[in-house]
Amino acid sequence: MKKPLRHVEEVADLGCVDLVVDHIGQLCTLDVPELDAKGPRRREGLAELGMVQDAALVCAAGRIAAYGPRDNVLRWLDGSGCSTAEATQVDAAGRAVLPGYVDPHTHTVFGKTRQDEYERRIRGETYLEIAAAGGGIHSSVADLRNRSEGELEALTRARLTEMLAHGTTTVEIKSGYGLSLEHETKMLRVAGAAAAAAGVRCVRTCLAAHEVPKEYREDRGQYLRIITDEILPQVVQQGLADRCDVFCEPTVFNLEESVVILSRARDLGLALTVHADELASFGGAVLAARMGADSADHLIRIDEAGRAALAASDTVAVLLPGTVFSLGLKNYAPARGMIEQGCAVALATDFNPGSSPIRSMPLVQSIACTQMRMTPAESLTACTLNSAWALGRQNEVGSLAPGKYADLLIIDGQDYRQIPYFAGRNPVASVFVGGREISA
Amino acid sequence: MKKPLRHVEEVADLGCVDLVVDHIGQLCTLDVPELDAKGPRRREGLAELGMVQDAALVCAAGRIAAYGPRDNVLRWLDGSGCSTAEATQVDAAGRAVLPGYVDPHTHTVFGKTRQDEYERRIRGETYLEIAAAGGGIHSSVADLRNRSEGELEALTRARLTEMLAHGTTTVEIKSGYGLSLEHETKMLRVAGAAAAAAGVRCVRTCLAAHEVPKEYREDRGQYLRIITDEILPQVVQQGLADRCDVFCEPTVFNLEESVVILSRARDLGLALTVHADELASFGGAVLAARMGADSADHLIRIDEAGRAALAASDTVAVLLPGTVFSLGLKNYAPARGMIEQGCAVALATDFNPGSSPIRSMPLVQSIACTQMRMTPAESLTACTLNSAWALGRQNEVGSLAPGKYADLLIIDGQDYRQIPYFAGRNPVASVFVGGREISA
Repeated sequence: MKKPLRHVEEVADLGCVDLVVDHIGQLCTLDVPELDAKGPRRREGLAELGMVQDAALVCAAGRIAAYGPRDNVLRWLDGSGCSTAEATQVDAAGRAVLPGYVDPHTHTVFGKTRQDEYERRIRGETYLEIAAAGGGIHSSVADLRNRSEGELEALTRARLTEMLAHGTTTVEIKSGYGLSLEHETKMLRVAGAAAAAAGVRCVRTCLAAHEVPKEYREDRGQYLRIITDEILPQVVQQGLADRCDVFCEPTVFNLEESVVILSRARDLGLALTVHADELASFGGAVLAARMGADSADHLIRIDEAGRAALAASDTVAVLLPGTVFSLGLKNYAPARGMIEQGCAVALATDFNPGSSPIRSMPLVQSIACTQMRMTPAESLTACTLNSAWALGRQNEVGSLAPGKYADLLIIDGQDYRQIPYFAGRNPVASVFVGGREISA
Repeated sequence: MKKPLRHVEEVADLGCVDLVVDHIGQLCTLDVPELDAKGPRRREGLAELGMVQDAALVCAAGRIAAYGPRDNVLRWLDGSGCSTAEATQVDAAGRAVLPGYVDPHTHTVFGKTRQDEYERRIRGETYLEIAAAGGGIHSSVADLRNRSEGELEALTRARLTEMLAHGTTTVEIKSGYGLSLEHETKMLRVAGAAAAAAGVRCVRTCLAAHEVPKEYREDRGQYLRIITDEILPQVVQQGLADRCDVFCEPTVFNLEESVVILSRARDLGLALTVHADELASFGGAVLAARMGADSADHLIRIDEAGRAALAASDTVAVLLPGTVFSLGLKNYAPARGMIEQGCAVALATDFNPGSSPIRSMPLVQSIACTQMRMTPAESLTACTLNSAWALGRQNEVGSLAPGKYADLLIIDGQDYRQIPYFAGRNPVASVFVGGREISA
């Protein structure tokens, strides 16, 4: 049976129709109201794409108004009295349409690229040797502090434009290469300005707790106080971020320090996220769930307690397989086991100049499918709806539910499974943000 | 010291200059005459990129005429008396320039895509289960036999156009989904016509010995006779291929059968290549070296005898890491050990609808670097000069040596190492074949 037209009665309230996409072969809406009322997608729910074949989609005022089998939609539209005079008419010509990707974990604001370090790692140099040769996070910190806001904005804007061309319509961007009040706020301003210029939706996260800067190596407590007493309050006061992240690892910020930072952030009204269990099985995921974080990210070494804690919470498990791939590591996060246990899994690029120079969500899907055995459907939900949940933006983006932003992609192919299957190509033919086509 | 201008004295013979590329930041010529006189690149030679910084390049009559530091080149050009009136002037604006990729192993002529099988494999179905559900090589054979030449040509042309946009200027294409005189020759005609239409150089290989077709399952000997007595002679007589390939594996064509086919092909004047040691350590590489094949391909399970045989021969070891990645396998061909032992390693996509739906040589470089620990320089040589050797085309393509075809790429970046580093993007800004820019 064909899926009925959804939410027709709400359309008239939205005013003039601004976009009609017709002749959609596969419309992957990811809109399944009875599932979505329950929280992020888990288990079998991850593969429910809310698909309509031979469909049409109508947008009004920059939002999804209605979708359904094309005959129903077009007949209704004719009789609705809505004006389509100003609407853009798009013929999808039988191709697949899906929600824009939501990339919930990136470090897109940086200066220099680090391909020298990539080559050293391939040659077998250790992290310590690379750091001694001037590599690692500290090299990006030193570089970023020396660059002007305008220069960083131009670099970031170009990257975001390319991410948008690969289908990312909402991107999370973290600070964390500033590690001082001046440079953390600079990074967050750059992220906001570059995203606005590129036309991509942006969620900003303060990651002042990415590392202890070199100048506070001998007095970690002082840097912690700078984070809790200066950086976080200023970030909130200036409206520069909605979220706070901590690199919670034995060698970076331990559990106690992480609790101090996250508690302060929560008190300031920030949403929480945690870099957890990447290098060691350390209780990061348990901490994230316990503190009500929106997400726990990385999780390569998550243990049984961590999995159970995530499965029992609404904290989304954001997996970053591009990082594992780029570092040439053998062990990916245990996605299959986490899904079976009931964790709400999402995917992100972790785009950064050191461990994951990947900015393409389609490639992340390919890696997730072939290396973590997520199915094409699971990986698509993980890159869209569940990643919207990871950012607390599930009411705005991540699916083509009526009322959400009209952020959508037309794919160069008739089957959504061809996205991960044809690894290494950009499968995106057209990108729409808020109902408007982005020109490449 | 700057590298001197090469072959200035030969340029005048080439007539009018048709292309000048100026302001090249990194010119990776791969042209190292003292190495290249010795055969395909091995060991440290794999990383010798013949690089010139701040360079210019001059092409005439569709071939490389000269290159060098830009001041030298431009001064010489001014005084040479060569006409540049008709020449296209290109400003590389500090970006990197390299030879077009040579992809020495693909199955680009096919009909339907097989993303259903990709999904089944991820779900854990075995090869036998997938075959029982209508998957595997035989499904492509049945599909291809039912399609017209015109339909296959249109599909193939579109794929080749995209491969060209990702930098592949010379591509090998195999038959092997026909498995009859009629359909093997059809595939090879399609390959030639589609490549001509797309504007990519093509080397064709007869792979009638890809599998025993279902209709000869009970009489393998009869199909072998069809290959040796009908298909190969007709392919040669009609000029449809230069090379013969055999899928040499215990479960496909055994060593004795492979020798029969390859011997016949050699007698008919075809160059040889072998699908070797992919599924089992079976002596395929040893056979390839012994019979003087241009290449032995796959080699995931190559043993010590195979490595030694390749190291002692000019048979190029063509590795296909995209296949291992796409199948989600854990073990790649032992590239590091093979390089250290002296094998001449090349890389290819193995583009096909079943085991490797990857058509991007840049992604193959990324996989080779991160998963097989080839350095960016080694992987570049393996994708260009050594893959030209694998096809016996080392005097025409694979490096920017004077006299070779002016097939070259301008990269969207200043450092060739960014190609594998930024995995999943198309790093190619401009493609030139025979000195002419290909429009996307």
